[in-house]
Amino acid sequence: MSGSTLGTLFCVTNFGESHGPAIGCVIDGCPPGMALDAADIQHDLDRRRPGTSRHVTQRNEPDAVEILSGVYEGRTTGTPIALLIRNQDQRSKDYGDIALRFRPGHADYTYWHKYGLRDPRGGGRSSARLTAPTVAAGSVAKKWLREKFGTQLRACMTQLGELPIPFEGWEHVAQNPFFAPVADVARYEAYMDELRKAHDSCGARIRVQASGVPVGLGAPLYDKLDADIAYAMMGLNAVKGVEIGDGFASVAQRGSVHGDALMPQGFASNHAGGMLGGLSTGQDIEVSLAIKPTSSILTPRPSIDIHGEPVEVSTRGRHDPCVGIRAAPIAEALLALVLMDHALLHRAQCADVRQAVGPIPGNMD
Amino acid sequence: MSGSTLGTLFCVTNFGESHGPAIGCVIDGCPPGMALDAADIQHDLDRRRPGTSRHVTQRNEPDAVEILSGVYEGRTTGTPIALLIRNQDQRSKDYGDIALRFRPGHADYTYWHKYGLRDPRGGGRSSARLTAPTVAAGSVAKKWLREKFGTQLRACMTQLGELPIPFEGWEHVAQNPFFAPVADVARYEAYMDELRKAHDSCGARIRVQASGVPVGLGAPLYDKLDADIAYAMMGLNAVKGVEIGDGFASVAQRGSVHGDALMPQGFASNHAGGMLGGLSTGQDIEVSLAIKPTSSILTPRPSIDIHGEPVEVSTRGRHDPCVGIRAAPIAEALLALVLMDHALLHRAQCADVRQAVGPIPGNMD
Amino acid sequence: MSGSTLGTLFCVTNFGESHGPAIGCVIDGCPPGMALDAADIQHDLDRRRPGTSRHVTQRNEPDAVEILSGVYEGRTTGTPIALLIRNQDQRSKDYGDIALRFRPGHADYTYWHKYGLRDPRGGGRSSARLTAPTVAAGSVAKKWLREKFGTQLRACMTQLGELPIPFEGWEHVAQNPFFAPVADVARYEAYMDELRKAHDSCGARIRVQASGVPVGLGAPLYDKLDADIAYAMMGLNAVKGVEIGDGFASVAQRGSVHGDALMPQGFASNHAGGMLGGLSTGQDIEVSLAIKPTSSILTPRPSIDIHGEPVEVSTRGRHDPCVGIRAAPIAEALLALVLMDHALLHRAQCADVRQAVGPIPGNMD
Amino acid sequence: MSGSTLGTLFCVTNFGESHGPAIGCVIDGCPPGMALDAADIQHDLDRRRPGTSRHVTQRNEPDAVEILSGVYEGRTTGTPIALLIRNQDQRSKDYGDIALRFRPGHADYTYWHKYGLRDPRGGGRSSARLTAPTVAAGSVAKKWLREKFGTQLRACMTQLGELPIPFEGWEHVAQNPFFAPVADVARYEAYMDELRKAHDSCGARIRVQASGVPVGLGAPLYDKLDADIAYAMMGLNAVKGVEIGDGFASVAQRGSVHGDALMPQGFASNHAGGMLGGLSTGQDIEVSLAIKPTSSILTPRPSIDIHGEPVEVSTRGRHDPCVGIRAAPIAEALLALVLMDHALLHRAQCADVRQAVGPIPGNMD
Repeated sequence: MSGSTLGTLFCVTNFGESHGPAIGCVIDGCPPGMALDAADIQHDLDRRRPGTSRHVTQRNEPDAVEILSGVYEGRTTGTPIALLIRNQDQRSKDYGDIALRFRPGHADYTYWHKYGLRDPRGGGRSSARLTAPTVAAGSVAKKWLREKFGTQLRACMTQLGELPIPFEGWEHVAQNPFFAPVADVARYEAYMDELRKAHDSCGARIRVQASGVPVGLGAPLYDKLDADIAYAMMGLNAVKGVEIGDGFASVAQRGSVHGDALMPQGFASNHAGGMLGGLSTGQDIEVSLAIKPTSSILTPRPSIDIHGEPVEVSTRGRHDPCVGIRAAPIAEALLALVLMDHALLHRAQCADVRQAVGPIPGNMD
Repeated sequence: MSGSTLGTLFCVTNFGESHGPAIGCVIDGCPPGMALDAADIQHDLDRRRPGTSRHVTQRNEPDAVEILSGVYEGRTTGTPIALLIRNQDQRSKDYGDIALRFRPGHADYTYWHKYGLRDPRGGGRSSARLTAPTVAAGSVAKKWLREKFGTQLRACMTQLGELPIPFEGWEHVAQNPFFAPVADVARYEAYMDELRKAHDSCGARIRVQASGVPVGLGAPLYDKLDADIAYAMMGLNAVKGVEIGDGFASVAQRGSVHGDALMPQGFASNHAGGMLGGLSTGQDIEVSLAIKPTSSILTPRPSIDIHGEPVEVSTRGRHDPCVGIRAAPIAEALLALVLMDHALLHRAQCADVRQAVGPIPGNMD
Repeated sequence: MSGSTLGTLFCVTNFGESHGPAIGCVIDGCPPGMALDAADIQHDLDRRRPGTSRHVTQRNEPDAVEILSGVYEGRTTGTPIALLIRNQDQRSKDYGDIALRFRPGHADYTYWHKYGLRDPRGGGRSSARLTAPTVAAGSVAKKWLREKFGTQLRACMTQLGELPIPFEGWEHVAQNPFFAPVADVARYEAYMDELRKAHDSCGARIRVQASGVPVGLGAPLYDKLDADIAYAMMGLNAVKGVEIGDGFASVAQRGSVHGDALMPQGFASNHAGGMLGGLSTGQDIEVSLAIKPTSSILTPRPSIDIHGEPVEVSTRGRHDPCVGIRAAPIAEALLALVLMDHALLHRAQCADVRQAVGPIPGNMD
Repeated sequence: MSGSTLGTLFCVTNFGESHGPAIGCVIDGCPPGMALDAADIQHDLDRRRPGTSRHVTQRNEPDAVEILSGVYEGRTTGTPIALLIRNQDQRSKDYGDIALRFRPGHADYTYWHKYGLRDPRGGGRSSARLTAPTVAAGSVAKKWLREKFGTQLRACMTQLGELPIPFEGWEHVAQNPFFAPVADVARYEAYMDELRKAHDSCGARIRVQASGVPVGLGAPLYDKLDADIAYAMMGLNAVKGVEIGDGFASVAQRGSVHGDALMPQGFASNHAGGMLGGLSTGQDIEVSLAIKPTSSILTPRPSIDIHGEPVEVSTRGRHDPCVGIRAAPIAEALLALVLMDHALLHRAQCADVRQAVGPIPGNMD
């Protein structure tokens, strides 16, 4: 398959550019008979939408989704679901001065060399705007997983630039523009205000969790559940690192500590992050992402133009000073898409499996 | 595709179990006309082979590879290359006591629930032994990349348990059993000896690098080069984290620091790790892996059996107290496989691209 | 991959229903830099369009295509090309009486049993209307093949119901509504008029040809060029048979006759239809299709309803009395899509191949 | 995926050359828990085996299969099943004189131009010998389909060269070397004897049938069940045509005749061959194949060598004068592989479908 499709059975093919007529996706392989309308999808799109606080890009996009196919009388038919989002607020003139020069840390340089031409308007295909169709598709997967298994997807920010964010509770996440699991975000607002004044940008760390995941999703190799999650997450714009469970902290752990003990009531801990041997354990799936600082900043940087001549580049346009701020709903969507795909793959191969004996323990709470 | 194949055009399908008759793989899509014989492959297999020092499993496997197809008079024909490695030293009795109980941190539990049965001999399909065919396939990819682009793959250990390993130079890596880039490994040998006595295991951190990579490999989304690398690496047994370039350190960096400046002579730094917007920049590709401690240890751990009853598990058998020790050649192979696949994908789509103007800068040395 | 995508590298994902808001497709993997605008695509859509003669359905659809992505300043960018065709003339009330009963020879019955529900309006997903996006995608492939290799795609009708159509010349095909290679179609018009009066339908036989195809496209097995052509053609609505070259006539031929002799100037004949061993020979590719009679007819037929009760079914609505009439441009498109995909696959693997010696003979004319 | 893999979920990757060390395949995605041993596979291999009558090649190959992986204590584990068949009787000197010249009607010419080199021994990869691994894999699929749904696969020869073979009954097929459904094959033996004396070869027509197929397997487009069957069959060596149900005879049928009436007890006829709208109807699946005459014959034919110089070619070696004779078990295997794959795909997407009402009629007998 060419590169714009995610999934083997629940397949999402993404299309569009930041300042083209429209963006969207085609979801192929959705089970039939599920109730679905645009409102089911719009909710997550609104969480990701630009222009909702002063800390994100001020581009004004309603991101209204239209279902073009695959739904009849409010139910999925099992045929492809095409989703369309028209672009509304394109100010392409903002980008004219960077058509011939490469922003440091940006895809300008690599697109130019790969394709020989590029759509420079708003970053074209490399824009974070292209995560909107992913979020839309993720909503369909989330709904199916919730109705079928009771699976819940959640994400929050755990670090903003240099500032670690303590975990106070999931209930705070929807109450602030940072998707931060804390009651008071004044400190993070001040940090972002200072950053904007400095004409600079910062990174973020995001935690994603799925609870209520059936045991046994995944494959021994190469398509481990962890591998496909890593693929999906590293495919999100600006991600530079992915961890499952204890991640890099596992390096310094002993086996006698890291290996989660099993008890009749369930696992005693979750260092593994919900996966063993490439398969889900039934515990919460825990994933962490590192998101780099936005490359489009006002601070002038040394670079070259398409002729190889030295130039200085500073990016005006409208950009997120921290792309990580809106990453939480996107990471949820990506995790949902991978789990949905593996749930279908699993029942294709193993629908007839009956374990000889024994209960299936989940998390111990 | 079912889960045991890696790659879209240069496809490796892996088969086998730790104590079955044989392990191996089929490589489909190799370009024709490349000189290839078993010795080209054996070299890397020998680097990964068990039993080469007291710090790894004492299982005695020659890992001799037989080329069954796809090579005629010493050259690849373009048809599938099947590689076969017979298993020799199976002591399956070592494992009899764990057939009905689940090792904490091991795939026993998840395999049992997914498939309803499992091959418990030596971990069956979940054994690190199954990385041997990956290494064999990687040797073919490395050879092609080297001959075509001069690409060089290298890997080393950068942390052993709690001990960070300083980087003194690539020349040391082949000289010691840890793949450590240092002249003196006495400290790490002592650490491992202590660990074995404690009947415990530890994790490791591995760095993988590719130099001489063409610019433009990858796709904007979802099949970014970084995404496919993350997939391949997270698919390696025991890996819990993957970083590209500065990885998780990027979170606390400013955009004015992280974005690598471009100069007529090349990039001024490599925070990006050789990829921007999902495409290779032509700089060195830099990847880091977190490998968890081995789950099979002699220290008794609480667990349950297949009836859900509480039991104690301690694993005899022959195991690597640190599976990370032999991970370096495997990580090289995985990176080579991903690069090879993307090199073929790239020329399929973009073989006619001629950039308007301008040189292609590489690393500044 | 789920079932709505055709191709491995040049991938077309089709979406839509006959009476939904829109139909369309996403083309992924198109090489960058090719000049492309909507007019390039509209021409073939107009050839397939309904309502252009009294012998086809009178549904009035302009089939105007909108390019949503993948083209910038008139050139393909290498990113997904999304094509959108809004449905205009839906008279869904025509179909109300068949929502609960199954038309003999129609997909009603199988969709109902597979999905548990179906969109009955105009046949929903099973409508021949869904060939429009295929034709649109085919236009992009045709343009690339023509510019790159000089490949020409042509199709004509060679039998209408019981009437074989002699081959007088390709120049007649565009001049009549039957895509018939003859100057005078009065006989076929009379046949169709009689058929309509009889409230019945008939089948057709279509010939498709590609000339100017490079030698060596395809794979030894399983993805032979012939296999992928057969897949694409048998996937066209109502097709019940596919032949390559002499097809079923080969059964009664001797090897001394069938095997096309090679001469320094080229092949002396083309019984093979342009393929040997799954690979293109450089000769004209020749394919024949059998298209069954339309199942939606006014003549009442015995059937059952969704409760299993006997009913009589006669279909009003607007239908093609011979779906084969509009099949010629669709068959061209399908052949172009397969050739384009294999051209990209071929250069991915074999771009470095240099034959030792010797010319490449084509057709002898 | 590269070209040597058949199937999306039940994937068969084929490897080997006629005179290399071994041929075989890897089956990935087999459901776990099915009883399987080598004898289950050997039976079909023996039906396809060369040297069993004077009418087929006299090459002496036991075709003994070894299961290398994926089976533990007599049951499939859900992991890849690798099957190995060692080549025994290679007389490569027989082929020396054709290494530099191209047999008319053979893959010599196209392989040479695609790959720049080829393994000429016994036809290398293009040999019909490579159908053995397909037959082996098909046995696994047949067993699962039989145990799960009661599906039965059968094939017979319906025409030998110019001689149509009447259908007297399936019970005769196993009793004669032609897989002919007649009691007395004296006429066909005489025909073959005459052909051998004439140093020539002939084609054949094969009928394949599956009964006991569940309703609803397939997809609307492009991956119709008919499309995937056509792909698989046209991928068999020497096949030049594929028909589903009435095939090319449908062209001259009226819709009022072709459309199979539905009755409460089942379908009244089976012109469709068991598929409507790309999905199985639950009726018998009926497929017909045209197989061309063998290209390797003793009669001298004009050709060219690799330098483009005119030569005469006559092929000694050991060849089937009619490759169609051994095609019946291969065609069964291919149909089984496609049905198995679609059975898994179907339950992945539609496992939760409950039809509102109504029985599922099958064939009316």
